[in-house]
Amino acid sequence: MILKNCKYIVTQNKNREILENFDILIKGNKIERIEKDINLENEETFDCSDKIIFPGLTNAHTHIAMTIFRGFYDDHELFDWLSKINPLENKLTYDLVSVGAKIAIMEMLSKGIVAFIDTYYFPEATLEVSQKYGIRLVSGRVLVDDLKTRMAENDVLIKKQNELYKVVADPYAIYANSTENLKLIREYAKKRNLRINMHAAETRQEVFECYKKNGKYVIEYLDSLGLLDNAILAHCGWVTKNEILILSKRNATVVHNPISNMKLATGAFFPYSAYKSLNVSIALGKDGAASNNSLNLFDEMKVMALLNKNNHWDASIINAHEVLDSATLNGAKATGFDNGSIEEGKLADLFAISETSLEMQPLTKENLVSNLVYSYNSPVEFTMINGKIVYKREFLEEWTQKAKVLSQRIKQFFEKNL
Amino acid sequence: MILKNCKYIVTQNKNREILENFDILIKGNKIERIEKDINLENEETFDCSDKIIFPGLTNAHTHIAMTIFRGFYDDHELFDWLSKINPLENKLTYDLVSVGAKIAIMEMLSKGIVAFIDTYYFPEATLEVSQKYGIRLVSGRVLVDDLKTRMAENDVLIKKQNELYKVVADPYAIYANSTENLKLIREYAKKRNLRINMHAAETRQEVFECYKKNGKYVIEYLDSLGLLDNAILAHCGWVTKNEILILSKRNATVVHNPISNMKLATGAFFPYSAYKSLNVSIALGKDGAASNNSLNLFDEMKVMALLNKNNHWDASIINAHEVLDSATLNGAKATGFDNGSIEEGKLADLFAISETSLEMQPLTKENLVSNLVYSYNSPVEFTMINGKIVYKREFLEEWTQKAKVLSQRIKQFFEKNL
Repeated sequence: MILKNCKYIVTQNKNREILENFDILIKGNKIERIEKDINLENEETFDCSDKIIFPGLTNAHTHIAMTIFRGFYDDHELFDWLSKINPLENKLTYDLVSVGAKIAIMEMLSKGIVAFIDTYYFPEATLEVSQKYGIRLVSGRVLVDDLKTRMAENDVLIKKQNELYKVVADPYAIYANSTENLKLIREYAKKRNLRINMHAAETRQEVFECYKKNGKYVIEYLDSLGLLDNAILAHCGWVTKNEILILSKRNATVVHNPISNMKLATGAFFPYSAYKSLNVSIALGKDGAASNNSLNLFDEMKVMALLNKNNHWDASIINAHEVLDSATLNGAKATGFDNGSIEEGKLADLFAISETSLEMQPLTKENLVSNLVYSYNSPVEFTMINGKIVYKREFLEEWTQKAKVLSQRIKQFFEKNL
Repeated sequence: MILKNCKYIVTQNKNREILENFDILIKGNKIERIEKDINLENEETFDCSDKIIFPGLTNAHTHIAMTIFRGFYDDHELFDWLSKINPLENKLTYDLVSVGAKIAIMEMLSKGIVAFIDTYYFPEATLEVSQKYGIRLVSGRVLVDDLKTRMAENDVLIKKQNELYKVVADPYAIYANSTENLKLIREYAKKRNLRINMHAAETRQEVFECYKKNGKYVIEYLDSLGLLDNAILAHCGWVTKNEILILSKRNATVVHNPISNMKLATGAFFPYSAYKSLNVSIALGKDGAASNNSLNLFDEMKVMALLNKNNHWDASIINAHEVLDSATLNGAKATGFDNGSIEEGKLADLFAISETSLEMQPLTKENLVSNLVYSYNSPVEFTMINGKIVYKREFLEEWTQKAKVLSQRIKQFFEKNL
């Protein structure tokens, strides 16, 4: 397939080039060539002369099936809110997790998201729906309580790995496992060659209790257990400078969730400038739809910029392009999928928006990244993953009708269980 | 016209009722009846069985023509940024302000905004475009420098007042006028029966310099000059408790601009809980598109909730319904237009979104306000102002093409003047 005559291509290559009126040749699941005027017989062509092409976005920390709880018991503290959600979560089924995943994935695809890192009950359900819609997923069975059983379940997931799916070892958080169990998880992860994905240093309480118990801060503690190499760590707002140095040495990815942290009032002290000066890779996550509550990265990118400018009293501490890096290149580093930029040889994961969108005007090569980060928030024109168009605007009519039907099943669950 | 069988109507009446399957009868520019099964011969009917109806939103502080600078010189401090923008503003023309206003108004209408309070050069241009598109406007000639001329120009605007347009006396900010001039403006406003609309207590620097010069904080100083009765004051982040008490006594409206304050890193210490406890009316504004950069109130409502939860370390300090109050009822109090709720006798200013929107799922009567505030951000289905449908989704195709053409004229301006 050839994406012909793209008005702009925001490549996110090393020089962050923005190309004007180039073609993109897709072969199989990859970007084969990016040139002007590619003419090949027998290739399907797709006119993009009124479209801006961006690399697909990665939602690097989320619990997508929690979409079933969207708008439920909002405006409460984290632990207060969890105490209301948890009893309902204990009643979830495979089927209901599928329902939540379907609504969430339709929303994510319609907003240019091509991959996500998920932590939730019934990961097989979310995996099944992801494969059906063609979106990339990284997940694992949460390794808590009966570790032996959980690891066996995770092994079943490992067998399902394919070009759209990768498994991680997920101990959830330090407060969900004993030190002994965390060591067992480390050994398991090493044996299976899995990266660690977990929550870390999300709240002041977590840090305080860790220090009281272990004489170490959260990241120091995880490092002493050997869990941090190439790890994916969600939140990491409450960290010391020494811990940031450790994260840098271990090549860990920090997943920033600015909206969820602000909404749950967990104290969104994200030390952006310290992370930046030590080159720690910062990806971007939505957290659950129940604590956000949207599933697009457009508002998340905007709030990432806003929160960090506000925290540092410095409007220049972060710019729109750095934010886009977090949602694309750093997201790709988090998942390990070879996407996040539009370059020859990379996976064909991308999305397009219309150059005439009201929210993007006036549109020039100079301000288009800024307008995407600070202004754009509508459904995109199309989203391509692994060389296939998995969403286009024309799908919305059918998808919204489907979401309405799915929504009924969530209502029935609430009626039965509340 | 009858809006038939509305799936939900979020009335924003005194009891914040949400009605299910009611009809709305519009007569002329007003809501005449809200009942089930209104059947009248010869009335045009409009099926709303799949739509949720909200009162129209008010953007209570903005500089809409600054849309021409959207995405230009982002990620800089307020005064640094102003020093780059101001020389360009000095070259603006009536025509170019019209261009910016057109793009902005199309965007605002497509996101359910029915009224705005504007401060900018060439207010006649913004007024002309507003009247053409049928959106409500409150503005005035900025009263600075040669006051006599400016007041004469404001008098010309007063003659143009009509059911969609109201004039204010706008001294811009305390640093834009001497004490003597502010007194002259007070006398002028009294004589013409105009309310004051201005910026106040936006930055720490402004407060510091006011105190050094006048021995009073900004609101105390304005009060000593008698300028605060029913005034509309943008920002008011840097205020003391005593000043909040003054604002309460004077029945002033504070217009909160959370995104602009965060983006320009002016220190977004908005004392929400103190305002709330003293019943100060808080409306919501976008500020200019160049410091935001969107022109919808959906992201602004979300960030209002996020910022204040984060500032107070308390997720329960503000809830979605209070945020919606700011964007509707308190916005109406700011403009003085009799809209902001859907009640019999009120102006027919409202917008509709589809009940099947992905961002709203799962949708119940209980979570729909939450989902609007925290999740929704797409173009709406239609917007009605003064009993007329001024935007519907079908317009988008034509409007986006129009915006593209207008955008060319902005590019020419930059090419000539940069």
